[in-house]
Amino acid sequence: MSTYPEDSVGLVAPQQLEFDTPLELACGRTLERYTLMVETYGELNADASNAVLICHALTGHHHVAGFYEGDRKPGWWDSAVGPGKPIDTNKFFVVGLNNLGGCHGSSGPQEINPATGEPFGPDFPLMTVPDWVESQARLADRLGVQQWAAVIGGSLGGMQALEWSIRFPERLRHCVVIASAPKLSAQNIAFNEVARQAISKDPAFHDGHYYAQGDVPKTGLMLARMVGHITYLSDDGMREKFGREMKAGKLSFDFNPQFEVESYLQYQGERFSTAFDANTYLLMTKALDYFDPAAEYGDDLATALQRAQAKFMIISFSTDWRFSPERSREIVDALVKADQSVCYAEVDSPQGHDAFLIPIPRYMDTFRAYMQRIADDIPRSTTGDV
Amino acid sequence: MSTYPEDSVGLVAPQQLEFDTPLELACGRTLERYTLMVETYGELNADASNAVLICHALTGHHHVAGFYEGDRKPGWWDSAVGPGKPIDTNKFFVVGLNNLGGCHGSSGPQEINPATGEPFGPDFPLMTVPDWVESQARLADRLGVQQWAAVIGGSLGGMQALEWSIRFPERLRHCVVIASAPKLSAQNIAFNEVARQAISKDPAFHDGHYYAQGDVPKTGLMLARMVGHITYLSDDGMREKFGREMKAGKLSFDFNPQFEVESYLQYQGERFSTAFDANTYLLMTKALDYFDPAAEYGDDLATALQRAQAKFMIISFSTDWRFSPERSREIVDALVKADQSVCYAEVDSPQGHDAFLIPIPRYMDTFRAYMQRIADDIPRSTTGDV
Repeated sequence: MSTYPEDSVGLVAPQQLEFDTPLELACGRTLERYTLMVETYGELNADASNAVLICHALTGHHHVAGFYEGDRKPGWWDSAVGPGKPIDTNKFFVVGLNNLGGCHGSSGPQEINPATGEPFGPDFPLMTVPDWVESQARLADRLGVQQWAAVIGGSLGGMQALEWSIRFPERLRHCVVIASAPKLSAQNIAFNEVARQAISKDPAFHDGHYYAQGDVPKTGLMLARMVGHITYLSDDGMREKFGREMKAGKLSFDFNPQFEVESYLQYQGERFSTAFDANTYLLMTKALDYFDPAAEYGDDLATALQRAQAKFMIISFSTDWRFSPERSREIVDALVKADQSVCYAEVDSPQGHDAFLIPIPRYMDTFRAYMQRIADDIPRSTTGDV
Repeated sequence: MSTYPEDSVGLVAPQQLEFDTPLELACGRTLERYTLMVETYGELNADASNAVLICHALTGHHHVAGFYEGDRKPGWWDSAVGPGKPIDTNKFFVVGLNNLGGCHGSSGPQEINPATGEPFGPDFPLMTVPDWVESQARLADRLGVQQWAAVIGGSLGGMQALEWSIRFPERLRHCVVIASAPKLSAQNIAFNEVARQAISKDPAFHDGHYYAQGDVPKTGLMLARMVGHITYLSDDGMREKFGREMKAGKLSFDFNPQFEVESYLQYQGERFSTAFDANTYLLMTKALDYFDPAAEYGDDLATALQRAQAKFMIISFSTDWRFSPERSREIVDALVKADQSVCYAEVDSPQGHDAFLIPIPRYMDTFRAYMQRIADDIPRSTTGDV
């Protein structure tokens, strides 16, 4: 039996929850029934007022923290979730899930389509952030959580948190939006489209029905990940990390990787290509593209956010050029205009967009302080075991 | 017969020049003989002191200005080259060429390898910026140009101009380096590597021997161009040009292009995939990666530039993030440290890296003023027909 660090939630296990109330989607289709893969840490208090929802980003999932049996690598946000960590599992009941359309156990393209007996593949309905939030609200019902202490997310996860505040104003007390944006820019969409073209034009994609062919569009996924990875890092960060370091120490005149950065990207791309589902990647990038909560409010984000009742914490990172601090300030400005309570922190960091996953001291301290304030807000009379 | 604008060089025609003095390359191999495709505008004066060399960027060529019979589109830098334009063909003898390894008529991967009777393909030697400059010096000899009035280039072309100033200090009076950098950053290399992987992993690439297969790695070239194109534009410029405009005016839940920017990139990518040679694209990106003139001078650019005898004009563009103004300032700082004569202009423009090809008034005015100064420097006693 392994021992785990003291500030780890330790050994964890996910659970699959089945839902059979039909879910009407933005695309006009309906999921008659669906599965959500969920993981929780900490204890829900007596009146279910200490629950925190963690929404995941493009390639994330329910395994947020702790270890699976035999794993040496913990969940994707283990740096922020655990006993004594910013999202303190001694205080909060923390819920992670894999979103619908995902490839980590929730209903998605890999699931068998009852109508055909084959995997849905590209016939799985395209999802939107509002669809996910709706499914997360039903998850909250199932868990007995009428109101989240906080909904928290980075990047695409932050978009879900923002959507929660608009769609279910009375169901969250705090909304934490990290390294996110109120909608994608043309450049963001363009990079997504390169990734989609790389995947869908890979002959091994078979129009999305590669499962039946026993094939995987590895090249497409590799390219998608390489492009994505560049946009997650900053120019400065890459300079610090790789510079022009050469693998062989000197120039070689062939097409083998010459510089360290080439090998690194190839390795990242190849690893990803065997670990992630191509149809899910396409679906997730489309959900990013579609997100635009201001659209149904006359393109005015402040009007959309006037509905919110939560308090907001917005965090951005100085060298993030995927969702730059400017994009976070758009959210802050809209919140101020909507007369909402908002804290904003712009964290100085060389790590680009990736910074939101990295335990940068100033980031962690700020985050911890805000989470402490949320913990202090939990109604005293109702804290379970005090 | 067509009529051409008054400030156009009008109808032009290229010429193929054959060279049979072996050219030793940085990679250790030798080109026994080679062809350069060249185009010239204006008249060389009596003592050949008014010649200007234009070096091209990644996908450029010898057709810099004017029109080919029947074409409606002029050469790639027609905005800057012509009678009365910044590079004034009434004053200068202007020379454009396709670099070795190119796919527009100079020796390159498409040429038949005498050893095999098949196109060289990936067996064409990899080229470096110094190799190109060496071949350009031989072109100068052939044209009877002992000293260029100026060597001028944007992007990869600017690197060639810079290399000229170090390698043949006495053979140019002015060096104009536009939207360039003293070497690629890790991020630059990373984007190049994505393009190379896209091309070389395309099944139609056939390890570079696609000519014999009658095949073209169109998908790879399309992806390479899409990625490249994003890095040529700025985030702001894309926002201005495309925003989140939708093709159908509303969301559609499928994988057809949803936003204008997606169609635009696909169109650009597809057009490019039938117009450019894949092996040449690989070779050109490697030449970019390799460029690092400071390397043989203890990694100190100022030491390298101490050799130069030319006067320098460096121009950058505010929203260029491929080769940002910061990169141009590195060159300027090294020139100042090397006690060289340098003018520097940072032009405010939303067009990103592409700006160097666009006749932005402040850019053209600055460029024109500097070129006038170069024209004024042409030894008086020797101007041809005065």
